[in-house]
This record gives sequence, C-alpha cells and structure tokens, in this order.
Amino acid sequence: MDCEFCGGDGGPVLWRDGFCRIVRAPSQDYAGFCRVILNRHAREMTDLAPAERARLMDAVFACESALRELFDPDKINLASLGNLVPHLHWHVIARHADDAHFPDPIWAAPRRASAPPRALRNDVSDARLGARLAALLAQPAA
Amino acid sequence: MDCEFCGGDGGPVLWRDGFCRIVRAPSQDYAGFCRVILNRHAREMTDLAPAERARLMDAVFACESALRELFDPDKINLASLGNLVPHLHWHVIARHADDAHFPDPIWAAPRRASAPPRALRNDVSDARLGARLAALLAQPAA
Repeated sequence: MDCEFCGGDGGPVLWRDGFCRIVRAPSQDYAGFCRVILNRHAREMTDLAPAERARLMDAVFACESALRELFDPDKINLASLGNLVPHLHWHVIARHADDAHFPDPIWAAPRRASAPPRALRNDVSDARLGARLAALLAQPAA
Repeated sequence: MDCEFCGGDGGPVLWRDGFCRIVRAPSQDYAGFCRVILNRHAREMTDLAPAERARLMDAVFACESALRELFDPDKINLASLGNLVPHLHWHVIARHADDAHFPDPIWAAPRRASAPPRALRNDVSDARLGARLAALLAQPAA
C-alpha cells in the first residue's frame, strides 16, 4: 500500500501497542512534538468504531499530558489533518509564545527564528518522554 | 473574562446543549467548516475530566460525519489550536483537492484561488447542517 505511515516510518518510536504508536516528530523548531499514528490503515476518525476512536484519543491525551509536564508549554496544539498522508495520525505539539510560528499554527509561514534552546525544552530525551507516556498509558483515565 | 469564545461569538449556531455548541465558521473558502466550542472556559483537553473529553469529541465526530455526508470531502481536517483564543474549540473542516490550500492546512499560504462553487458544497444551508447534527447527536454512538 502506498502510504508512508503503513510502513512504520515517522521518527523515533516512544511508545507502541497493537493499536497505535507514538513517535517523536523530527523537528528543528519543536522539541515537544509527538505524533500518534494508527497502526492499521484508516483515513478518518469516523472510519473507526467509537471504542477505537476513544482509544486513539486516549493516546493523544497522554501525549498532551506528558508534553505539558515536560515542556511547560503556553498552549497545546492538536491536529489530525492527513491531506498529504491520508493515514490516521495526530500531531500533538507543545507551543511556546517565542516559538517560530506562535501564535500561528506551525503550518503557517514562520514569524521569527526558532527560540534559543532552553534546557527545559531540549533536555527531554526520547527515553524520558517515552517513559512518561508508558506510565500515563498504563493507568486508566482518572 | 477577556475571551471572545466565552461571549458566544463565532458564527451561526448550528446545534448546542449545556456543554458545548457547534457553529458554522464564517469562511469564504470553506463552506464545510464547523467549530465545536466548549461553553465554559477551559484551555486544554486535559483540563477536562475524561468523560467531558469524550463528550466534546463526540460533538467533533458528529461534525465530521455530517460534513462527510453533505460535502463529499477528499479529507477531513480536525484541529484544536487556540493560540490566539485559548478557550477550547475544535475546527472541523471538509477539504477538497481543489480548495484554496490543499494539500496544505488551511493556515498555510493559499496555493490557488478558491474552487468555483459547486452545488454539492454550497447549497448546504445552516438549517440542513444543523438538522443533521441534531440527528447524529441524538443517537448514541453505534
């Protein structure tokens, strides 16, 4: 199938189960940027059964929680677009007021150079982020 | 509170209950563009209780279903950004391959003039879209 996300690409895998995987998006501008990718091929959320939608959103919300804890964002951005790669995946992005595009979405033209690295944002390793996701996804939603 | 979405603005209301409302986004380029807006003020999905997250996503998915039925899109785009207005709201957008930005997100620079009106896309009145949403939201998720 001619879909790059069916093949498993997309960046270092932080967490996965039999249903979906969470990767860290390769990005020079955004250290706190994860993608949640459905393992099997589907295009739209409403192509999933309601329980599957909820399961995928639980992974999205775990990413949001982990990014809020580890990157102290000014805002979280969530998006499922897929116009280029119509395989269900969610972008979960920690945004800061001094990032390259704020307050625009990251798909707009940049407004400024990327903010200088801050320890808080950039010392978060894949292993640390993955461990936090595993902890969040191991516990039932509160 | 200095938040434009707390005041109820945002376009014609298609459906509402005590928890959220669905408005049609005023847009010259996108006839099939709804916003789901939480009534009370909250910034992020993870500021909501899990049952509230699910309730808001059910409204988002009802919009997706209605837009797929009525606008025959090539792709649905879902996004919760809120960098400018940090009050929880979801964009639900029916995208077509000949729309102004495709395959880019609608927040990128336009690639072309808007597609000429098509009856399928533009004859969908607020009343018709609202009636479909009401029907979808009245039935439990299948």
